[in-house]
Amino acid sequence: MKKDIQISEVGPRDGLQSVTSIMPTDAKKRWIKAQFEAGTTEIEVGSFVPASLLPQMADTAEVTRYASSLEGLDVAVLAPNLYGVKAAAENGAHKISIPFSMSESHSVKNVRKTHSQMLEEIARCSEFIQSLGEQRPMLEVGLSTAFGCSIEGAVPESRVIAMAEEVIKLGVDEVGLSDTTGVGNPRQLKRLAEGIWQHCGREKLNGAHLHNTRGQGLAVALMAVEIGMTTLDSSLGGLGGCPFAPGASGNIVTEDLVFMLESMGLNTGIDIEKLIEVRTLVQAALPDETLYGFTPDAGTPLGWPYGEN
Amino acid sequence: MKKDIQISEVGPRDGLQSVTSIMPTDAKKRWIKAQFEAGTTEIEVGSFVPASLLPQMADTAEVTRYASSLEGLDVAVLAPNLYGVKAAAENGAHKISIPFSMSESHSVKNVRKTHSQMLEEIARCSEFIQSLGEQRPMLEVGLSTAFGCSIEGAVPESRVIAMAEEVIKLGVDEVGLSDTTGVGNPRQLKRLAEGIWQHCGREKLNGAHLHNTRGQGLAVALMAVEIGMTTLDSSLGGLGGCPFAPGASGNIVTEDLVFMLESMGLNTGIDIEKLIEVRTLVQAALPDETLYGFTPDAGTPLGWPYGEN
Repeated sequence: MKKDIQISEVGPRDGLQSVTSIMPTDAKKRWIKAQFEAGTTEIEVGSFVPASLLPQMADTAEVTRYASSLEGLDVAVLAPNLYGVKAAAENGAHKISIPFSMSESHSVKNVRKTHSQMLEEIARCSEFIQSLGEQRPMLEVGLSTAFGCSIEGAVPESRVIAMAEEVIKLGVDEVGLSDTTGVGNPRQLKRLAEGIWQHCGREKLNGAHLHNTRGQGLAVALMAVEIGMTTLDSSLGGLGGCPFAPGASGNIVTEDLVFMLESMGLNTGIDIEKLIEVRTLVQAALPDETLYGFTPDAGTPLGWPYGEN
Repeated sequence: MKKDIQISEVGPRDGLQSVTSIMPTDAKKRWIKAQFEAGTTEIEVGSFVPASLLPQMADTAEVTRYASSLEGLDVAVLAPNLYGVKAAAENGAHKISIPFSMSESHSVKNVRKTHSQMLEEIARCSEFIQSLGEQRPMLEVGLSTAFGCSIEGAVPESRVIAMAEEVIKLGVDEVGLSDTTGVGNPRQLKRLAEGIWQHCGREKLNGAHLHNTRGQGLAVALMAVEIGMTTLDSSLGGLGGCPFAPGASGNIVTEDLVFMLESMGLNTGIDIEKLIEVRTLVQAALPDETLYGFTPDAGTPLGWPYGEN
């Protein structure tokens, strides 16, 4: 059965890079395998950044190679620059995402690059990826802080749309909308998406990466789905957030997102009971971290899923 | 400035009837006053039920009289039968809501009445309210377990729509959609609302009472707003749930709901900073209870609210 919505599990990347505990490589592999077996067919498994910056991600190359050995799994990774993009491609990633902060002060603080320096870097990455030919990974640019920034405050929507256009001109496959600090609202997502679709083409934006910092994650995700977006990032147990954005915490909880989508009759391909079981494994490997989510505590309702009747 | 959405604070009723602590009458009054001063102009202050059943609600008459002395506040109360409706009217309630469970087994368990017995009771209540003339309170029937039931499982949508029609024929002013056990999803709310509007008239359904049991509350609330509903129940700190529905817990958090609506440019009339301050008072009066909500912890974002730009 064809999936209506692709849920991209970002826990092994966004979750693990935000917690202080370091998950052993074997536990990461078990997590990825278990979640794949629960029906998750896209997982962001790590970030190709220097281990000195994010020791939690030091084993990303090994984890990426392992994940790409699981047939049917789309292996996504983050890479902030050409060096990371090359490493990601060499290790078998299928989808590489470059974070590009729409707030220039956040960009400078996070990756020490201005907007024009980032555009140059993205151009180099795009050129490299194109050079790999037909079997190349997909290259996405994640428009981070697209909904607002904890350093700059409001981020003009016109700037986000203009930047998306610049990036698409550089030959990347897609842009994504990221609410890095969890300040966004559903109607803002709609305006941003429709603006980008108008300027870049409908097929150039399909996914959103939303945070639940102010409890808005599922509501914004609902709007994304209702306007026709097809990929949503989320994190098992809501692990993670952005370590470089003060005050930010909390990805959308995968379990609650699956419950919402499947309740609405949208196929995610994920078995929610098996998904909830994966928590046990993750919690055992991260005994000091709190896992979030309402559906795991409440359970699925009697007789669920309900159809139209 | 005219409100776009009326948030009906149900904490003093749904919140307090669900917790084991009993809030002193004076603390209830301080809560109601503080939240009114923060801009909340509709508050459900109590439930006219026997004190032996819900000792937390024993002072509802006094609290209702106090609340109706606050000029500009719409005082809502719950009443399960004619006895309660009469007491509510006598004590100055402006809006009386009768819960009517769409699941007959839940109705029998909760108020020991079958559907036909409930319809008879509602008819008597409606007749009584009509007899009060022009200054009469508004009478609403809350269609509880409209989204599903923890005893029966799925509740047919056709039954909910048919019951709404029966109830409206009895002369009540409005019906409301209640997700008593937090099993609902956004598209289900849309189907139910559109069905009721079609069969009963657009003006006969304006409000929803949603629970956050599975983390879906704000997403369902978003759909309610997007299809044109104008009243949403929520509870400060997410206090409450339904004590008669096993496994149910958690109203929508008022603070997070205000954040969502105001972020979208919808006027609630509520000052979110003042609203968050009310938590201190409530927590002091209920030291053993947990208050929920993300926005109070994260705070409003720098430069918020963001306009379109």
